[in-house]
Amino acid sequence: MISSHIKEKLQSGSLIRKMFEEGNKRKAIYGAENVFDFSIGNPDLEPPKEVKDALKAIVEEDVPGGHGYMSNSGYEATRAAIAKKRSEESSVTVDAGAVCMTVGAAAAMNDVFHSILDQGDEVILLAPFFMEYNNYIDNHGGVPVIVQTDDKFMPDVDAIIAAVTPKTKAIVINSPNNPSGVVYSEELLKSLNAALLKCDHVIHVISDEPYIELAYDGIKVPSALDCFDNLIICYSWSKALSLPGERIGYTLVSPKHADYEDLTAAIVLSNRTLGSVNAPAIWQKVVERALYAKVDVPNYEHRRNLLYANIVESGFEAVKPNGALYIFMKTPNGLSDSEFGEICAKHNLLLVPGASFSRPGYCRLAFCVSEQTIINSRKAFEAVAAELGLK
Amino acid sequence: MISSHIKEKLQSGSLIRKMFEEGNKRKAIYGAENVFDFSIGNPDLEPPKEVKDALKAIVEEDVPGGHGYMSNSGYEATRAAIAKKRSEESSVTVDAGAVCMTVGAAAAMNDVFHSILDQGDEVILLAPFFMEYNNYIDNHGGVPVIVQTDDKFMPDVDAIIAAVTPKTKAIVINSPNNPSGVVYSEELLKSLNAALLKCDHVIHVISDEPYIELAYDGIKVPSALDCFDNLIICYSWSKALSLPGERIGYTLVSPKHADYEDLTAAIVLSNRTLGSVNAPAIWQKVVERALYAKVDVPNYEHRRNLLYANIVESGFEAVKPNGALYIFMKTPNGLSDSEFGEICAKHNLLLVPGASFSRPGYCRLAFCVSEQTIINSRKAFEAVAAELGLK
Repeated sequence: MISSHIKEKLQSGSLIRKMFEEGNKRKAIYGAENVFDFSIGNPDLEPPKEVKDALKAIVEEDVPGGHGYMSNSGYEATRAAIAKKRSEESSVTVDAGAVCMTVGAAAAMNDVFHSILDQGDEVILLAPFFMEYNNYIDNHGGVPVIVQTDDKFMPDVDAIIAAVTPKTKAIVINSPNNPSGVVYSEELLKSLNAALLKCDHVIHVISDEPYIELAYDGIKVPSALDCFDNLIICYSWSKALSLPGERIGYTLVSPKHADYEDLTAAIVLSNRTLGSVNAPAIWQKVVERALYAKVDVPNYEHRRNLLYANIVESGFEAVKPNGALYIFMKTPNGLSDSEFGEICAKHNLLLVPGASFSRPGYCRLAFCVSEQTIINSRKAFEAVAAELGLK
Repeated sequence: MISSHIKEKLQSGSLIRKMFEEGNKRKAIYGAENVFDFSIGNPDLEPPKEVKDALKAIVEEDVPGGHGYMSNSGYEATRAAIAKKRSEESSVTVDAGAVCMTVGAAAAMNDVFHSILDQGDEVILLAPFFMEYNNYIDNHGGVPVIVQTDDKFMPDVDAIIAAVTPKTKAIVINSPNNPSGVVYSEELLKSLNAALLKCDHVIHVISDEPYIELAYDGIKVPSALDCFDNLIICYSWSKALSLPGERIGYTLVSPKHADYEDLTAAIVLSNRTLGSVNAPAIWQKVVERALYAKVDVPNYEHRRNLLYANIVESGFEAVKPNGALYIFMKTPNGLSDSEFGEICAKHNLLLVPGASFSRPGYCRLAFCVSEQTIINSRKAFEAVAAELGLK
C-alpha cells in the first residue's frame, strides 16, 4: 500500500539515524560520558547572540500580519539583503529576484532538482558526498552519476568531463565538503567551469553551501558566483547560525546563468508546489537581521584540532579538514568499513562508514560534539589502535 | 534547461496568484478602499493571544538546543499532545507514533503522495477542489481522477465507486471544503467508508483538514477518525491559528489503517527526503502549548454572513457555506467563468473562476478580508447585478 520506491528506501533506512539511535542505546547502558558518538552532524553550539536578540525583538514588535503568507519566494527585504551580501562577497552583482527563501538547503535542493530534471536525467556527484543527494535526485526522476575525487578528496576535472553524457543535467559541488571537510580552490573551480562551458549543452552547477561560513586555518572559501556561470546556490543557516531545527535557507541563481529567467520562476513554482509554500516567516526576518552573524567558528576549529590530534596521534590516517564539521578518516589495515566500525563500537566509538558517502575504506567523524567528549574519547582511539597494532 | 513538466506549469501559472497581483495593481490605481479583492484566502485575523503568549514564553525561556535537530517526525511531546487531542475528539485512541509534524498541510500532502504513489497511480478528487492537489499528485507520478459532487457540492458515493479502478490508490476528502465551504455529514462519510472497504484493494482516504476549526451555524465537523478506516489526516494550523506564513502542520495515520506500520514510517522518510527534514522547531513548541486555542471564528462567521447577504440580496445564487473561508457563487445568466470574471473586474470585484477548482460555472470569493471591504463591496455586487439585469 506504500509506493515501491519508498519500500526500498525504508528497507535500507538512514544509516546515520541508526547510528544515532545506537548511540542513545549505548549511552543508556554505559553512561553518556563513556560513549563517544561522532556519528551525527547536529551542530551543538547555540545560535549567536545576534540571532537570539533578533528573534526576541521580532516577537516583541509583533507586527500585524507578521505570520501571514508572503510571496512564495519570501520577503522582498530578506531576499534583497541576501543579494546585497552575496554581491559584496563576489565580483557578481545579484538582485533580490535571484533569491528564493526555502525550508533549509534540503528543500532548496529538492526545489532545484524538481525544476530541472526530467525522467532519466543524470546528475554528477563527487564522492565522497552527503548521501541524501541520492534521494533528492531520485525524488524527481533523476539518476546520480558518481565520480570519485582523488586521495585528497579533490575533484578531477578530466574525470568529471569524461562522465558527461547528453543526459547530464547538473553537477553538485559541496565545498567545504561533507564528509571530507576539504575546501576546493578557486583555481580548481574555475577550471571546472571552463571545462563545463565547453560541453555541448548547459550543465547546471549546484553549489550546496551549508558549510561556507565554517572554514578554518584562515582559509577563505571561494565565492561560487566568481567561479561558475550556470550556477544555482543552495544555502542553509543550519550550521552558520546553528538553526538546523528551524529550517531556513535559500536558492540563488547566478545572473550569469544561461536560463536565468525560467529557472528563477521554476524554483519559486517548485517551492510552492512541493509543499513548502514559503520559508517560515519569522526565520526569514531573523536571518535578515542577523545576516552577518556567525556561530562561534573558532570553537569548532579548536574541536577539529583536538579530534584530529586524537586520530593521527593514535596512529590513524586522515586528511586534515579545512572546513565543515567532519573528519573523514581512513580505515586502517585495509579493514572494510563495517569491520572497522564494529571494532570501534566495542570501544563505544561511533562513526559513520565511508560507504554511506559512496567512498568505502573511510569513516566520518563529526566534531560538533562537546570538547569534553573529544578529550575523553582519546582513550578509545588509543584502545582501538592498540587492538589493531597500529603503534 | 528546466524540466518539461515545470515548463508546462510555468506557462499556465497560478491563477489565484495572478488575481492577487491584478488586485494589487488595481489597488494602486483606484485606491485600496475601492478594490474588492476576494481572490486570495490569506487569513487576515491575528493569531490568538495563546499563540503569541506561547511564542514569547518559548523565546524567553531560551532552552539550550531549542533550535537544533529533533527526530524527523518532530518532538515527541508535541506529537503526543496532538494524539491526545485527536483521541478526545473521536472514539479512536491515537498515540504519538501516528503523528508526523510537517511544514503545513501542503508539505503533509506531498509527504503522503510521495509515500503511496507509484507512476500512473490514480487519486480521486471531488470537484470542486483546491487546484494545488493536481500538482501535489503530479509531483509524485500520480494521476488525478476527477469526480463531480452534486449541486449542493455533496459527494455521490456511487459516482466515486464507479470511478475506482485497479490503479486507484487514494481519495482526497476536504471538509469544510475549499472552495465551496460545505461540510460533509458523518452519515455520508461513513457510507463512503463502507463502500471503499468493499473495493478489491485498500484505498487510502486522505483527509485534508486545514479548515476543521472553522465551522459556523453551530455545526460540528465530524471526526474523520470516526468515519474512515484507511485514513491519513493532513492538518495545518495556517487557518486555525492564523499562521500560514510559518508553515506548521502534521500527518496522522489512523491506527485502524491496514498498513499502519509501513505507512507511518514511509511518511517520516518522505518528510526527511523531500527536504522538510522536520517541521520548524519553534512552531512545534508553540502549537503544543496553544493546541486548544482558535482564531476568532465568530468574526469569520460574521463576515461570511455579510458577504453571503451581499451575494444573494444582489440577486446572485450561492450555497451558504457552513465552514472554511469561501463562498462558491454560481455565475449568473449562463455566463462563462471568464465572461463573468471580466464584468466583475470592471467593477473592481475580484474573484477566482470555478474552472480553477475544476467546476466551471462558479466563482470563489474568500471572506477573510476586512469587514469594511465586504460592506463597501455591496455597491459593486449591485452594479454587476444591474448590468446583468438580475433584479
